[in-house]
Amino acid sequence: MSKNIITIGCQCGSGGHTIGKLVAERLGVPFYDKELIKIVAERSGLSEKTIERDGEYHTPSLLYSIAVKGFSVYSVDNKNNMVLHDQINAYQTELIRELAEAGPCVIVGRCADYILEDSKDCLRVFVHGKLEDRANRVIHEHGIAEKEAERHVRERDKKRSRYYKHLTDRDWGAAENYNLFLDSSCLGIERCVDVILGCAE
Amino acid sequence: MSKNIITIGCQCGSGGHTIGKLVAERLGVPFYDKELIKIVAERSGLSEKTIERDGEYHTPSLLYSIAVKGFSVYSVDNKNNMVLHDQINAYQTELIRELAEAGPCVIVGRCADYILEDSKDCLRVFVHGKLEDRANRVIHEHGIAEKEAERHVRERDKKRSRYYKHLTDRDWGAAENYNLFLDSSCLGIERCVDVILGCAE
Repeated sequence: MSKNIITIGCQCGSGGHTIGKLVAERLGVPFYDKELIKIVAERSGLSEKTIERDGEYHTPSLLYSIAVKGFSVYSVDNKNNMVLHDQINAYQTELIRELAEAGPCVIVGRCADYILEDSKDCLRVFVHGKLEDRANRVIHEHGIAEKEAERHVRERDKKRSRYYKHLTDRDWGAAENYNLFLDSSCLGIERCVDVILGCAE
Repeated sequence: MSKNIITIGCQCGSGGHTIGKLVAERLGVPFYDKELIKIVAERSGLSEKTIERDGEYHTPSLLYSIAVKGFSVYSVDNKNNMVLHDQINAYQTELIRELAEAGPCVIVGRCADYILEDSKDCLRVFVHGKLEDRANRVIHEHGIAEKEAERHVRERDKKRSRYYKHLTDRDWGAAENYNLFLDSSCLGIERCVDVILGCAE
């Protein structure tokens, strides 16, 4: 029952990126997180900044939300914005399928668990943790100001959740969508890595 | 970071009981699932059948539900019924706290994760699985008729969920309440046991 593809969804600051990177290093397979942005930028001709802003961390306007909910009342600006957002998603989806077909790898975020839903070869992991620990991690690893840290992780999670819902029509972090759900606050980074390696064997 | 107490919540038919039993055997510690019912029966003078019926698998009537939701409109019968239900819960809660204080053990179900919420010594696990696999398990292990199996596991889960909500005011199986969430359909029983042992070390 070996699993060649490992997807990792995670709450902001939970250590999902670090865990994924360590898993990939130990398995000797490619690791994709922000690396996906670089490839999509090369293919699409868009800047990495645009892809990050209009991809996973896209903030839809009220009119955009109305449009998504089924009303066709949105301005030209919002329409263009939506098209760009969906174009980026299409590039990312295509790329994730290609990478999974090319061979074993670890992919963090970007709804990879959903995109590779039909693959029996895929272990779907989600990492969560206590708000306090996650805030601490973004202070020390991402240089976020202490007073901003809790708001920062909450805001990022809200965007990840909205992005996931838009692309998959599922709830982000709902346990039934994952094979393994790990609390990094309780288990620690190294233990999470060991559990994933054990389950992927 | 060793964890002496392991609580296992699980969907019906997901193999949580078997996994818990194997974990307890490998660790050489006591295992409590239906064993809790026996002890509560001895202490309360109620029959095991009454405890099972009015404990985890208690079916509240409409009037009982109204009462729980904050209206004090319930008949004497329902009031008595509720009192019995809550008495059983009180016995179980007290017992679970005693067992956790007495030493390392594995406890399945009965909101033990919530009852031992403040214990840093506790690893909270939830086991889920595909409906099809769970139905198969109750056919082969519990002798449930094939045509009844899916309905049986759904009905049991509904009751467990309602019981958990009543006692904890939380959603049963919501990932944030657990340190480890395992998909037994994907991982298999043995792998789940290994993961838990690895995390409890």
